[in-house]
Amino acid sequence: MLEFWNTYPPVKKQLDQVLELLENRLTIDIPDVQEALDNFLHSGGKMLRPALFLLFADLNDRDANKQTNYINVAASLEMLHMATLIHDDIIDDSPLRRGTITVQSKCGKDTAVYAGDFLFTQFFELLIETLNGTSLMAENALTMKQLLLGELGQKADRFNLNQTVENYLHNITGKTARLFELACYEGVHLSNGGSELEKAAGTIGRNIGIAFQIYDDILDYSSDAKTLKKPITEDLAQGIYTLPLILARQNHEDEFDQYLQKKQLITEDEVRIVAKMVNQYGGIQQSKQYAKQYYDETITLINHIPASNAKKTIQTLSKKLLDRQY
Amino acid sequence: MLEFWNTYPPVKKQLDQVLELLENRLTIDIPDVQEALDNFLHSGGKMLRPALFLLFADLNDRDANKQTNYINVAASLEMLHMATLIHDDIIDDSPLRRGTITVQSKCGKDTAVYAGDFLFTQFFELLIETLNGTSLMAENALTMKQLLLGELGQKADRFNLNQTVENYLHNITGKTARLFELACYEGVHLSNGGSELEKAAGTIGRNIGIAFQIYDDILDYSSDAKTLKKPITEDLAQGIYTLPLILARQNHEDEFDQYLQKKQLITEDEVRIVAKMVNQYGGIQQSKQYAKQYYDETITLINHIPASNAKKTIQTLSKKLLDRQY
Repeated sequence: MLEFWNTYPPVKKQLDQVLELLENRLTIDIPDVQEALDNFLHSGGKMLRPALFLLFADLNDRDANKQTNYINVAASLEMLHMATLIHDDIIDDSPLRRGTITVQSKCGKDTAVYAGDFLFTQFFELLIETLNGTSLMAENALTMKQLLLGELGQKADRFNLNQTVENYLHNITGKTARLFELACYEGVHLSNGGSELEKAAGTIGRNIGIAFQIYDDILDYSSDAKTLKKPITEDLAQGIYTLPLILARQNHEDEFDQYLQKKQLITEDEVRIVAKMVNQYGGIQQSKQYAKQYYDETITLINHIPASNAKKTIQTLSKKLLDRQY
Repeated sequence: MLEFWNTYPPVKKQLDQVLELLENRLTIDIPDVQEALDNFLHSGGKMLRPALFLLFADLNDRDANKQTNYINVAASLEMLHMATLIHDDIIDDSPLRRGTITVQSKCGKDTAVYAGDFLFTQFFELLIETLNGTSLMAENALTMKQLLLGELGQKADRFNLNQTVENYLHNITGKTARLFELACYEGVHLSNGGSELEKAAGTIGRNIGIAFQIYDDILDYSSDAKTLKKPITEDLAQGIYTLPLILARQNHEDEFDQYLQKKQLITEDEVRIVAKMVNQYGGIQQSKQYAKQYYDETITLINHIPASNAKKTIQTLSKKLLDRQY
């Protein structure tokens, strides 16, 4: 779905190079793993993380001779993202992602374990080729760990009715926002944008990631399967209670818990009833307010960045991203 | 099973430090993953790879002030080994390893995926802390990839009756020998033992790894479940045809294939018949000859190393390792 970027030609052009690099690096002489990787790579990801990285690098006057390094780092971000998605789909038993059958569903969990591991190895390799000896190595290792701990935190909180907004925010910061944070931070760091802009970029990335994930979780209750390209309320049935549910349940515990206490035994009809209550009791509306707080802070921070075309694109993009219908 | 090292006090002392570091680094606030890691860490691994690394470092006059670095690298080798074992056990559906129930069997495949991933993150972190900016980073990334490709090669060759000795050796070089090679090479490299000794160390490590794996595969046909601490002929039933079978089958294809063609549908009785034929047609005897070639080359190379206590220990250890009954 790189057409998403057609209105931003400088980004689109670089993302085409990133995709080409990914295709080259994700080749393996094992047919089922290769097929799984190819399908996943072409399943319509928008490459948001590489794009943000490149845009934040474009804020600065960067050395055109080092373009290869930028494409490498952009690709490394997508590889890490892909690796975690493939392993997460194993744990979630997810049948669909991006409207396409998941690796674990198509090729089995075994192939999915190795496909994810292969992506981790290629991620390491690309990082080492490009960033060996820099402080970005440790940043990448830390982010990789935080992604995993965020997912594990979410898994540990499954079916936990006592989950708070804070737990939720903590988990999505790890599983989603940290990688956005790294992408923006790395863009500024690699192009020598200075420590002040680095810090702002990290915060902007983290906020975009949190708002993005909140919208994602809202869509799980407000969209339909066709638009969303995956089953709706999938999280709920698996005991993953996201922000809309947590907020809607706050003053209606008994009404919710008569269904939620059934845990895995909740029926499809009951899931629909709970989803309806989430809407009815303002879970979606309140979640949008949370997302808006992060969004507003992001816009303020972006406004402080010196004027440039890249800044304009970041502004437009943030608005587009956080006004999601897809 | 660090008692294995009681007769080598300098190694034992350092391995105790490695174990302590592993215990510190493998802590995670998710009870089931923590339990899985603890059980696995204390399930009696002999820490051969860290030990070989330390012994090869001890060949040289190394800087005592940098002992922390040596313990870190030794621990990183064990982490990578543990990560791959945990993910391999998912693919193999293995119930037991080292006489202990496997992570995937005890905690489920989901936890096993994340436990392995956590080990990869900790491996990466420790490497970056210790070796960032050195050429050993790329060596580690390459080895990690080769381990995975070796496992994937073995998986792709399952139930393949046309598998040759060369295929087998290629797969075990990747899945087992490369990490031994890295361990020995890293030991010399980090202690500045010079390029000639580095090269010899790599070859010694690789040969030890190959011979070690051949003996492991022999034991699958010649030992009993109690001594081996895991089910015997487990590989055969899963379509993993190792050297003893490949060699025994060479002049008796029809006799073997009447059973092997049944693939997964082979019965336990038939597995026993095949195992008996492997013995009867010299599969074990011939495999020992193969292992001996690698062993002899190893001993010759070790003999060329200048005299020292570490050299003596490497000599005794190689003999002990390649005369396995366990």
